[in-house]
Amino acid sequence: MTEELLDGRRERGRRTRESILATAVDLASVEGLEGLTIGRLASELRMSKSGLFAHFGSKEDLQLATIEAAREIFVRTVVQPALAADRGLPRLAALLEAKLEYLREGVFRGGCFFDAARMEYDGRRPGPVRDAILEQFADWSKLVADCVRAAQREGHLDPAVDAEQVAFELDAIPTAANMRFQIDRDEAAFALARRAIEARLAAL
Amino acid sequence: MTEELLDGRRERGRRTRESILATAVDLASVEGLEGLTIGRLASELRMSKSGLFAHFGSKEDLQLATIEAAREIFVRTVVQPALAADRGLPRLAALLEAKLEYLREGVFRGGCFFDAARMEYDGRRPGPVRDAILEQFADWSKLVADCVRAAQREGHLDPAVDAEQVAFELDAIPTAANMRFQIDRDEAAFALARRAIEARLAAL
Repeated sequence: MTEELLDGRRERGRRTRESILATAVDLASVEGLEGLTIGRLASELRMSKSGLFAHFGSKEDLQLATIEAAREIFVRTVVQPALAADRGLPRLAALLEAKLEYLREGVFRGGCFFDAARMEYDGRRPGPVRDAILEQFADWSKLVADCVRAAQREGHLDPAVDAEQVAFELDAIPTAANMRFQIDRDEAAFALARRAIEARLAAL
Repeated sequence: MTEELLDGRRERGRRTRESILATAVDLASVEGLEGLTIGRLASELRMSKSGLFAHFGSKEDLQLATIEAAREIFVRTVVQPALAADRGLPRLAALLEAKLEYLREGVFRGGCFFDAARMEYDGRRPGPVRDAILEQFADWSKLVADCVRAAQREGHLDPAVDAEQVAFELDAIPTAANMRFQIDRDEAAFALARRAIEARLAAL
C-alpha cells in the first residue's frame, strides 16, 4: 500500500472516531456515562458493535475517550474565548459568561457534561473514569480561582478577600442555572445567574 | 385468621417495606435511580427477586416508592426542624443550615438524593419518575422563596430585592457544597458554604 493510501485511510479512521465521539458525548450528557456502553452507542449510531470495538476496545476506553472529547469541546468553546479577554476582572467575567453561554446554547445535548458526570461518579469507587472526571473539575476550579487571584493582582478586586471563597461562590451560579434550565428550558435561569454574578463581582 | 394475626402480618409487611426502601434510597443516592432495578436491590438486600416483587410490582413502582421515602426523610431531617425556628430570617437561615447539616451528616450515603436524581433525570423523556423528581424540586424552591418573602414581610430583609433571585442565589450554595464534599469528603466545602450564605444574607 502506498503512503498516500495509508494516509487517506488514517484520516478516514480519525474522522470516523471523531464523529463517533461527538455522538458519545451527547448521549453521555443525557443518559449518563455509566449508561454509555458499546452496545448502546452502536444502536444510537446504527453501527455494528464490532465496528465500534475496532475504535474502542472496552467500555472503559470508550468512556475515557468520551471524557477527553468533551474536555476538548469545553476548552474550545469556554476556556479559549475567555483567555482572549484582558487579564483580571474582564477575563474572569468572560469565563463565567462563556460558561453560561455554553449551557444556554446546549453545546452538549444534556447540559453540562462535567456537572452531570461529576454528580454521577462522585459517590462511586475510585477508578480511571472517576479520576478523569475529578481531574477536569480540579482543573476548572483552579482556573476560576486563578482568574480571581489575577483580578486581585490587577487591582480589580479587593485583595483582602479569600480567592477560593469567591471562586466557590461564583462557580456555584452557572451550575445552579444549568440544573434549572435543564428542567424546563426556561432561559430565565440565565438571567438569574447573570444578575447573581454581576452583584457578586460588584460587591468586591 | 383472627384480626390480631392479620394486624401483626400487616405490621411486619410495613416494617419490611420500610427497611427495603431505606436501602433503596441509599443505593439510588450512590448509583442513581436508573440503576435501581429489582434485581440490583435484591442482590444488595440478599433477598429473592420474587420476594421484592411482592412489595413492588415493577421497577417504576420501586423508583416512585423510593422517591417518596427519600422525600419523607428529607422533610423530617431538614424541613420540620427549620419550621420550628422563628418566622422570617431565623427560619430561612435555619432551613439553609439544616440543608448543609443533612449533606454533612450523609443522611443519604451518596449525598443529596434529590440533586443527584435531578441531574440524572432532567434530560430524560417525561414520565412518572421524572415528574416526581421535578415536583420535589419545585416544592423545595417554593419553600426557600416563601421563606425569603416571609423574611421581607417581617422586616428582616430588604423588601425591594427580588425574592426569586435571592432564593436562587442562596439555594445554589448547598448544591455546590454537596458536589465538592462528595468528591473528597473534605468538610471545608461546608465552611465555604456557611460563609457564602452569611455574606449573602448580611448584604440584604
